[in-house]
Amino acid sequence: MKECAIGIDLGGTNLKGLIIERDGSARHLTKMLTEAERGGARVLENILTMIDTLVRKEGSNGHIIGIGIGTPGFVSEDGVVWGAENLPGWAGTQLYEPIAGRFSLPAVAANDVTVMALAEALFGAGRGVRNLVCYALGTGIGGGIVIDHKLYKGTSGMAGELGHVSVETNGILCNCGQRGCVERYASATGIVFLAKELAAACPDADISPFVKEVRANPDGVTSRMVYGYAAEGDPVACAVNERVCDMLARAIGITLNTLSPDRVVLGGGVLQAGQIIIDTVKKYLPEYCWPMIRERCDIVAAALGEEAGVMGAGAMVFDK
Amino acid sequence: MKECAIGIDLGGTNLKGLIIERDGSARHLTKMLTEAERGGARVLENILTMIDTLVRKEGSNGHIIGIGIGTPGFVSEDGVVWGAENLPGWAGTQLYEPIAGRFSLPAVAANDVTVMALAEALFGAGRGVRNLVCYALGTGIGGGIVIDHKLYKGTSGMAGELGHVSVETNGILCNCGQRGCVERYASATGIVFLAKELAAACPDADISPFVKEVRANPDGVTSRMVYGYAAEGDPVACAVNERVCDMLARAIGITLNTLSPDRVVLGGGVLQAGQIIIDTVKKYLPEYCWPMIRERCDIVAAALGEEAGVMGAGAMVFDK
Repeated sequence: MKECAIGIDLGGTNLKGLIIERDGSARHLTKMLTEAERGGARVLENILTMIDTLVRKEGSNGHIIGIGIGTPGFVSEDGVVWGAENLPGWAGTQLYEPIAGRFSLPAVAANDVTVMALAEALFGAGRGVRNLVCYALGTGIGGGIVIDHKLYKGTSGMAGELGHVSVETNGILCNCGQRGCVERYASATGIVFLAKELAAACPDADISPFVKEVRANPDGVTSRMVYGYAAEGDPVACAVNERVCDMLARAIGITLNTLSPDRVVLGGGVLQAGQIIIDTVKKYLPEYCWPMIRERCDIVAAALGEEAGVMGAGAMVFDK
Repeated sequence: MKECAIGIDLGGTNLKGLIIERDGSARHLTKMLTEAERGGARVLENILTMIDTLVRKEGSNGHIIGIGIGTPGFVSEDGVVWGAENLPGWAGTQLYEPIAGRFSLPAVAANDVTVMALAEALFGAGRGVRNLVCYALGTGIGGGIVIDHKLYKGTSGMAGELGHVSVETNGILCNCGQRGCVERYASATGIVFLAKELAAACPDADISPFVKEVRANPDGVTSRMVYGYAAEGDPVACAVNERVCDMLARAIGITLNTLSPDRVVLGGGVLQAGQIIIDTVKKYLPEYCWPMIRERCDIVAAALGEEAGVMGAGAMVFDK
């Protein structure tokens, strides 16, 4: 059989696993509950159970060359998780030794957002591209950097905190302690905040059905709703989009001047809004980037869906 | 004899060359005029003459494994220079073929500032460090990124334009077309501009001998003069330093959040001011960087002197 890897994607609610080949073809996608509320030892046990399940589905593990795991937080070079505040008891877990002990297979782990970048680079919107940067616009903004077709993790596994690039002097205070992080403006959370701000500032609600709905039900505002109205041309929803994409273009411009990647991939739930975000970011980017660098870089939407994380996790095994 | 490389550093005025071993030990440092005013073909001929001179000094070229060149501008992957506006007629020069043709040796070339970063990483203030970022604070600000002990150039050779990271919303217009580039504040040029601005705004020149001198001889202001007064505690010169280092800390914070390097090296002529810049940058950095990333990164002054460029150029040969 062809050489394979096991990919595991650890989420707050679900644990996903699959078998993946070097060319990205995957099989046996399997889900189970993470059971984060039962503590780190239980989560680790569930990961081991998932691996066992996948090995059984394959029939043997002779052709499996390793196990890749995407996890919230960061992973030190020797396989210890740290900084994963959303999973109580998970930080401090040693991932590599129990896997080697039970399955005699090497493991490699990294932040769950950064591995999505690797999946897009190898199998998705970055296919064939050497140097790539990925932004995942979800509740927050995560990033991933792929250099020479390999995931760049930094020595302590923390590289790619692209949501915390500051784009506004004395801007909105972020929960990281900095001001003006792009995450405050262009994540789903940031978009909702801006939407409420601009709706409140609108002098005449009659010009904007969007403003009327925000005022009627402020707790119901979502980035999806903003982009629904923007697609219909609502002036205030469109103004929110302009502001969001201006801020995102600032962050992308900084990353371009730093890394001069061949492609930037935008993904995450917010990108369900589609081409409007790509187009508006491209409109603002010339203000924030060296022309010669910008001309050599595409901005595109992510091509892989929800399985990017688990695929990228497995792909790290071949990356080593 | 031990394997050696030839390093060439192409400056606007002088061309430098030397022989370098893998461990950084170097010999036969040689200088000649660049003769940029005589056009690109002449500059290339001078580079070939320099290589010939160094081969003769060595006695033979059997132990020389390649030639590394640091040049203004950028170098495409196949060895064509582009974007070197300060050397008329130099852009468009194909560097690799004439060297291979005359010496049967492979050549590799890159931007002259980025190769300084490689030299610091391998032989200087970054020795032993895996991931490193270098800022050269001169007339402008150049940058270099070393990842896994190797120079990261980006696919088109343009990575590391760290002087054009924007640090001030709607800040000073840069000649690159962007606003608020850190180069406008923390290069020698930027420091002189800030010095004049703060001196002009000072309500009482009696509190500051520095302000008196700036007003008496505005054309004589240099970054060296600013830091001379700052070292003596002059309040306005110290205020200039605070502003410069605040801006520099913003740029470094962004780079840290992006790349999480193990060390940042600050070099270039401005760093002759020494520890005051390192210390002031460190004071501001916590505002602009994730604590966990900052704690894992040193900020230090460059250790190599004027020969960093030519050493780094030669070191690229071993890097390949």
